[in-house]
Amino acid sequence: MSTPWSQRYAQRTKTIKSSAIRELLKFTQRPEVISFGGGLPAPELFPIQRVEEACHNVLEKNGPAALQYSTTEGHPPLREMIASNLRRYGIVASADNVLITAGSQQALDLIAKLLINRGDRILVESPTYLGALQAFNVYGAEYECVPIDHDGLRTELLESALRTGPKFMYILPNFQNPSGVTLSRDRREELVRLAEKYGIPIVEDDPYGQLRFEGEHLPPLVVLDREHNRRDNGYTLGNVIYLSTLSKTLAPGLRLGWIVAPEEVISKLVQLKQGADLHTSTFTQMVAYEVARDGFLEQHVKKIRKVYRERRDVMIAALEEFFPRGVEWTRPSGGLFLWITMPEGTDCGRLLRAALKENVAFVPGDCFFATGDEGCRHMRLNFSNAEPAQIREGIRRLSVAVSQQIEELRPEAVMA
Amino acid sequence: MSTPWSQRYAQRTKTIKSSAIRELLKFTQRPEVISFGGGLPAPELFPIQRVEEACHNVLEKNGPAALQYSTTEGHPPLREMIASNLRRYGIVASADNVLITAGSQQALDLIAKLLINRGDRILVESPTYLGALQAFNVYGAEYECVPIDHDGLRTELLESALRTGPKFMYILPNFQNPSGVTLSRDRREELVRLAEKYGIPIVEDDPYGQLRFEGEHLPPLVVLDREHNRRDNGYTLGNVIYLSTLSKTLAPGLRLGWIVAPEEVISKLVQLKQGADLHTSTFTQMVAYEVARDGFLEQHVKKIRKVYRERRDVMIAALEEFFPRGVEWTRPSGGLFLWITMPEGTDCGRLLRAALKENVAFVPGDCFFATGDEGCRHMRLNFSNAEPAQIREGIRRLSVAVSQQIEELRPEAVMA
Repeated sequence: MSTPWSQRYAQRTKTIKSSAIRELLKFTQRPEVISFGGGLPAPELFPIQRVEEACHNVLEKNGPAALQYSTTEGHPPLREMIASNLRRYGIVASADNVLITAGSQQALDLIAKLLINRGDRILVESPTYLGALQAFNVYGAEYECVPIDHDGLRTELLESALRTGPKFMYILPNFQNPSGVTLSRDRREELVRLAEKYGIPIVEDDPYGQLRFEGEHLPPLVVLDREHNRRDNGYTLGNVIYLSTLSKTLAPGLRLGWIVAPEEVISKLVQLKQGADLHTSTFTQMVAYEVARDGFLEQHVKKIRKVYRERRDVMIAALEEFFPRGVEWTRPSGGLFLWITMPEGTDCGRLLRAALKENVAFVPGDCFFATGDEGCRHMRLNFSNAEPAQIREGIRRLSVAVSQQIEELRPEAVMA
Repeated sequence: MSTPWSQRYAQRTKTIKSSAIRELLKFTQRPEVISFGGGLPAPELFPIQRVEEACHNVLEKNGPAALQYSTTEGHPPLREMIASNLRRYGIVASADNVLITAGSQQALDLIAKLLINRGDRILVESPTYLGALQAFNVYGAEYECVPIDHDGLRTELLESALRTGPKFMYILPNFQNPSGVTLSRDRREELVRLAEKYGIPIVEDDPYGQLRFEGEHLPPLVVLDREHNRRDNGYTLGNVIYLSTLSKTLAPGLRLGWIVAPEEVISKLVQLKQGADLHTSTFTQMVAYEVARDGFLEQHVKKIRKVYRERRDVMIAALEEFFPRGVEWTRPSGGLFLWITMPEGTDCGRLLRAALKENVAFVPGDCFFATGDEGCRHMRLNFSNAEPAQIREGIRRLSVAVSQQIEELRPEAVMA
C-alpha cells in the first residue's frame, strides 16, 4: 500500500502563511477572555429587526429570483445604490464601475489574481492590513515597504520606493488597520501626484472611512486623482481602484464588499470572479439593499460612530490610567483600532502569552509587517467589540502583563 | 498627461477566457427566448416559505452571531450535518473533513490555488464542466483529456494518460455536466485502482448525485477508494477530494458548497480561503442549516427528482418527435443536462445564431472541451429550468434550426 497522496502533498504544496488573527479568534471565544484581537464590529448594534423585515420583503416579492443564480457583477439596485453613495463623496462612478464581492477580502484576492505575477513587488504601508498580505502572498507577491507615522504613509520616502517599479500601491488612507492613523490631506495630494508621475496604480482600501468620530472628512485618493490628473478621454476613474464594504457599517456576516474601477478593469475582474465563485449570494445582496435603502444605512452609521467613539475614549482613558510610562499609543479619529508601541526590546509575542494568562487578548504587531522581524514592539487593540466596562477591565488586565514586561526590560527599576 | 494605467493594463494583464455561458445568460433573459442554456434549477421549486421561516428563526435566536464574522471552516452544525449525510452514502467523514465554500465553484478555485502551479497538467474528461476549466485556467493549468462515452470516462484510455504525470484528475461521475452520462460501476473501480497505482489524486465533483431519477445509486469514488485501498494509518479519506453543493438541491442563490478531504488538506484549504474571502456568509450558512434540518432537504429532493424526471422525459419525447434523423442524444438517469451530437460537419456556433433567431438557446459543445477545436457538433441542453410545455415548444423551435443546418450539410436531401 502506498502512502496516501494527501500525506505526501502536505510537504510539497505551495507554502502558505497561517493567520495569527484567525487562530487567535478561536482562543478568544472562551467567555472569560476580554479580546482586543480580531476586528469585530459591535454585534449589539446589528439592525436585526430591519434585517428580518428585509428577508421577509425580499422573499415575499422576489423569492424565486433571490434564491436563483444571478449575474457575476452583482445585484443591479445594490450596485446603483453604491455608485450613488460614492457620488456624494465626489467619486464619479456609475453602477458599471462597481463589482460586488464577498467582502473586501475577496476584492483583494481578485485584484491580486488580476495584477500579481510571481515576484512582482507591491508597495505597502508598514505596518499594513494582514489580510491583504495573505491575499497577495498566495500569488507570489514581494513587497516594497514604506513606513507610516501619525499622518499616515511617509510620502517623503515614497519616490525612491516608486523608482523600484512596484506593480501597485496598497493604501488604507482612513483609520488604517492596524495603526488607526489617517493619511493627511497634503500627503494624499502628494501620493496621487507621484502615482501619476510614475504610472503606478493605487489600490485604495476604505472599509472604515464612514466611521469618522470627529474632524473633517478627507477626500478619497480616487477623487484627488480625478481632480489633479484631469482625464480628457472619457475616463472618470484613473489611477485608483477603490474598495469598500458593508462589513463595518451593516454586518460582516453578510460578506458584502465592492470594487470601484474603470470599466475595462471591472470587466476583467468579473471574468476572474466567475471562475472564483460565479457570483456573490443573490439573497444577501437583495437583503442588504432592502436594509440599506431609503437612508436607513446613513442613520445607522451615525449610531455606530457614537458608540465606537465612546469606546475609543474609554480605551484611551484606561490606557492613561493604567499603563506605565514608556508606552505610546495612537489616537484614531475613527475606525476600530489603535496601535500601541512598547519600549525597545519588548517582545509582543511573549507579552501576548502573559496577557492570555490575565484573560485578555490583542494582536501582536509583527503580523502586520510584510517583511523582516519588525513589529515586535507593537500591539493592535480593537475597541469596537467590547463594552466600555469590559474595555476598562481589559486594559487593566493588559497593564499587568505590560508593566511586568517593562520591569523585566529595566531590572534597575525593580532594584530601585 | 499620461494614459491611465487601466487602459495600458487592458492589453498586458493575464489572459482570461470569457465564459460563453455567462454571456449567453444575459441574452436569454429576454422573455421571448426559451433557454436550454445555463444550468438553472427550477425556481418554482425553491422552498421560499421554509427559507423565510428559517430567516426568522435564525435572526430571532441567533441574530448577533448570524450577522457577525465567523470561522473560515464554516458553521459547525452545517458541517456536522453534511458529514452525517455523507456517512449515509458510505463516506466516512467527520465535520473536521468538511470545508464550507461559496458554492462548489469556490471549491474548484481553492483546490486549483492549492495544487496547480503554472504548466501543471490536469486530467479531465472530454467534454467536462466549463466552470472547472475557468477555475483551473487562471492558475496556468494545461490539460490531459480523456474522452467519455455513454458509460462515462473511457478508463481503458486512462493508463497512458496517467503516465504523463497529471497533478490530479477532475471527474464528474454522476449525470455529468455537460453530457448527462454516468460513470459505470466497473469503470469507477478501475479509476480508483489506477489512481492508487499512479498516486494521482481524484477531485470528485458531485453536484447532481442526489438527483437520480431511476436505477441504482452507484458508490462515490471516495467510498470505493476507501474500500479498495485500505488505509492502516488512520486515513479514512485517501486519494479523493469530494465536492458537492446545495445549489441543485436547495438554492444556488445562497452560494453554499463544500469540500470533503483529509484533515491536512482541509487545513491548507482553510488558509487559502482566509485569504480569498475570510469565510462564507454566516447568515446563509445558518439559514441553510435551519432549512435543511429535520429531514426537510431529503423530502424536498424527492420533489425535485420527480419534476426534473418529467422534464427530461418531455425533452426526450420532443426530440424524438421533432428532430431529424442523424442527430443523437444522451438519456441521462438524473441531473439537469442532456447532450446532443449532430452529424459530422455541423457548426454549433452557427447553429446557435440560427436558434436564437427562433428564440431558443443552448450552449454550444465546444465550450466544454479543454483543448483543440472539438465539440462543434455538440449542444448541451438543460431540462430543469423550463416547464414541460415550454420544453416541447423550445425543442420544436430548435428543430427548425437543426433541420435547416442538416439540409445545408446534405444538399442532395434538398434536391430529392
